[in-house]
Amino acid sequence: MKHLRKLTNKVDVQININRLLSDIHKYAQYGKDPQGGVTRPSFSKADHDVRTLFIQELENIGLEVNIDGAANIWGIKRGNQKKKGSIVIGSHLDSVPNGGKYDGPLGVLMAKEIIQTLIGNNITLNHDLEIVSFTAEETNDFNLSTFGSRSFVGRLTADKLKNVPNRRGEFLHSELQKVGGNLNQFPQMIEMQKNKKVFIELHIEQGKRLEKNNTAVAVIDRIVGTYRSTVKVIGEPNHSGTTLMEDRKDALTAAAEMILAIEHYCNHIDNGVVGTVGTLNVSPNAANIIPGIVDFIFEIRGNSEEQIQKALHTIQEVWQSISKKRKVDVHQEVFLNQKPVVLDSELIHILQQTAQELAEPYMTFSSMAVHDAVHMSTITKAAMIFVKSVDGKSHCPEEYSHADDIKKAGNLMLHSILKIDQELV
Amino acid sequence: MKHLRKLTNKVDVQININRLLSDIHKYAQYGKDPQGGVTRPSFSKADHDVRTLFIQELENIGLEVNIDGAANIWGIKRGNQKKKGSIVIGSHLDSVPNGGKYDGPLGVLMAKEIIQTLIGNNITLNHDLEIVSFTAEETNDFNLSTFGSRSFVGRLTADKLKNVPNRRGEFLHSELQKVGGNLNQFPQMIEMQKNKKVFIELHIEQGKRLEKNNTAVAVIDRIVGTYRSTVKVIGEPNHSGTTLMEDRKDALTAAAEMILAIEHYCNHIDNGVVGTVGTLNVSPNAANIIPGIVDFIFEIRGNSEEQIQKALHTIQEVWQSISKKRKVDVHQEVFLNQKPVVLDSELIHILQQTAQELAEPYMTFSSMAVHDAVHMSTITKAAMIFVKSVDGKSHCPEEYSHADDIKKAGNLMLHSILKIDQELV
Repeated sequence: MKHLRKLTNKVDVQININRLLSDIHKYAQYGKDPQGGVTRPSFSKADHDVRTLFIQELENIGLEVNIDGAANIWGIKRGNQKKKGSIVIGSHLDSVPNGGKYDGPLGVLMAKEIIQTLIGNNITLNHDLEIVSFTAEETNDFNLSTFGSRSFVGRLTADKLKNVPNRRGEFLHSELQKVGGNLNQFPQMIEMQKNKKVFIELHIEQGKRLEKNNTAVAVIDRIVGTYRSTVKVIGEPNHSGTTLMEDRKDALTAAAEMILAIEHYCNHIDNGVVGTVGTLNVSPNAANIIPGIVDFIFEIRGNSEEQIQKALHTIQEVWQSISKKRKVDVHQEVFLNQKPVVLDSELIHILQQTAQELAEPYMTFSSMAVHDAVHMSTITKAAMIFVKSVDGKSHCPEEYSHADDIKKAGNLMLHSILKIDQELV
Repeated sequence: MKHLRKLTNKVDVQININRLLSDIHKYAQYGKDPQGGVTRPSFSKADHDVRTLFIQELENIGLEVNIDGAANIWGIKRGNQKKKGSIVIGSHLDSVPNGGKYDGPLGVLMAKEIIQTLIGNNITLNHDLEIVSFTAEETNDFNLSTFGSRSFVGRLTADKLKNVPNRRGEFLHSELQKVGGNLNQFPQMIEMQKNKKVFIELHIEQGKRLEKNNTAVAVIDRIVGTYRSTVKVIGEPNHSGTTLMEDRKDALTAAAEMILAIEHYCNHIDNGVVGTVGTLNVSPNAANIIPGIVDFIFEIRGNSEEQIQKALHTIQEVWQSISKKRKVDVHQEVFLNQKPVVLDSELIHILQQTAQELAEPYMTFSSMAVHDAVHMSTITKAAMIFVKSVDGKSHCPEEYSHADDIKKAGNLMLHSILKIDQELV
């Protein structure tokens, strides 16, 4: 029982949950929203201030701090250099408008807590251990979510970004420079990628699967693919009084049937995919005119490309018969087709094993939302740990995870890192 | 066969369809839209110009012209004074944006054509015959449709109107004065009402019932009631990825089901009512957020109050079960409850009889749209004649009625007026 022995050596090492909770509270003061939540989009005043705090704190615990071209903040705790490459842990510090205290910061502050715990216990790893806080993970004014991680792995290039403005006419490149980033330093990020050996991100679940199963933590084995298309339903605008029911080509009743077909598929045909119409606009949108055009965005998320394609195929077949029956035209244009990402099986295995050794019940499932780990997985072994969200709430002031669950997740992450450090060649 | 004899005396009197068609063409030049239709809302430059033309033409054919407080234009052809009160014919000259040549002007220009025909044939009626062009019948910037007729019959008062602005901050009272109206002259309209004995409005059908029945004209026996409410569906906004289907309170899928319930009722339970959701708005309306709130306007039109109430009752029952099943809240607020209007049975009878005597096939049905006749019916005997609309199209450049059908409707109206003039005490 090699693994169990190894773990047992340091099983008394635990994160300091009180220090972590106090950090979460402290960071939540930056961008505190009068509506009760946290409003801290990247490049805001609150973001500037929290970056200053974070860098100062990393330096205070003795890390070498570095800011890359995308203004991602990196801190290194040097290992004993017995093993090459670094283990990276972290997440993001930006928030949605009036969001919660946990989505993002928990992952970054947990990374800091783990490093502090190692330092406090005089543990030096074989690998360098790096903490990262990625820039602009959330949907933002520049319409570029997961900006920092996408830029770091080369999925966003300086050339594409040089003329990107926000609604106020400010340019990304200039906002970036104010927080230490620089499009001219994007090439250096390619160099930086090379020594990254592992990335582990801890995040709140933002769903109810853990709560329903009364389990504190989950090991994430993949991140769902997301397909989005704009759908235009074209009927005929007509007088709502004089046009008999049988003569109508109502784009809205057609769209209603199409929307329910999506829901029906996800509820009754394949419960493993989720489908949503989140945005819908009616034209001409007048009380006494039968809707002539309805535009909506159709989203499907699923664990495998096959699952997504099967859902699309079946739903589109139903749509065709609706279009034919109702004599409306349906046009669809795909604008996002993000493939599902399978996370690293070796890391998943170590995380699961560690949980077992800690006698910590866990679930294994896929993440239904995109995280920085998706992009990091293209350049390194990546894994994620989820902590139970109370009532599944997220992106709102009520976002909450119990201290006890956070502690369990933190200790799982800490001991997994110790194991990875030992086991990875 | 008293009636038949009377009709036969003047059966050779016919409207001059070419003169009428040329008028329709001439009036359509005012506000001619680059998109192919007519844009002539009341108080626009085109409306100012067409009013000047119309008044001039009425004076040219020898009518006494008068403009009332609501800027409705009246012209009188004096009768032989053997009978008291006046027979009023007309409609409106304003149009919707990029509308057609017929909705409104056909009724006004037909009235003018009938008067010209009577003059040309040296026919003097027992009653005074009046032509009217009502102001702002269509939905307009001041959000006051059928403004002229509603004001005339006292349903809109000067007091309520004195501070009504449009979107450009112009006040109705000042726009009114520019076309000869005046809120201070509203009391005189009450006086004017007293001698009105009959109102007959000719209008295009704006639907397909005549076309389907291959019939040129319809005698309208009632005008449907219209019920409108704002409906708010309150679900829960949540992440479209992390929220399992079973945990959703999706306001849009709920609204979709509610909309289809309206359609189902009107298609399969009572085909005599028409129901429409013409406007719908989603909040927050983001691709990756399950809709939290959907607001829509629900409209039902029906021939009788009982029919409308039964539809509302049944549909609302279905909505309740949807609300319960989906755990969403549904709030409804009625903002329009216009009762159905039964038109004058004596006039309807004369119109039907005249059609029979002219051997003109006709239908009798209700108008599914509101017209100035609805309001005139509150102060006088009122009736309507519909002319077949090609393909049911209206409020668009393609709005069209065949010359032959217009001619048939015009002759029916002409001979009905002659009969009314003789038969009414």
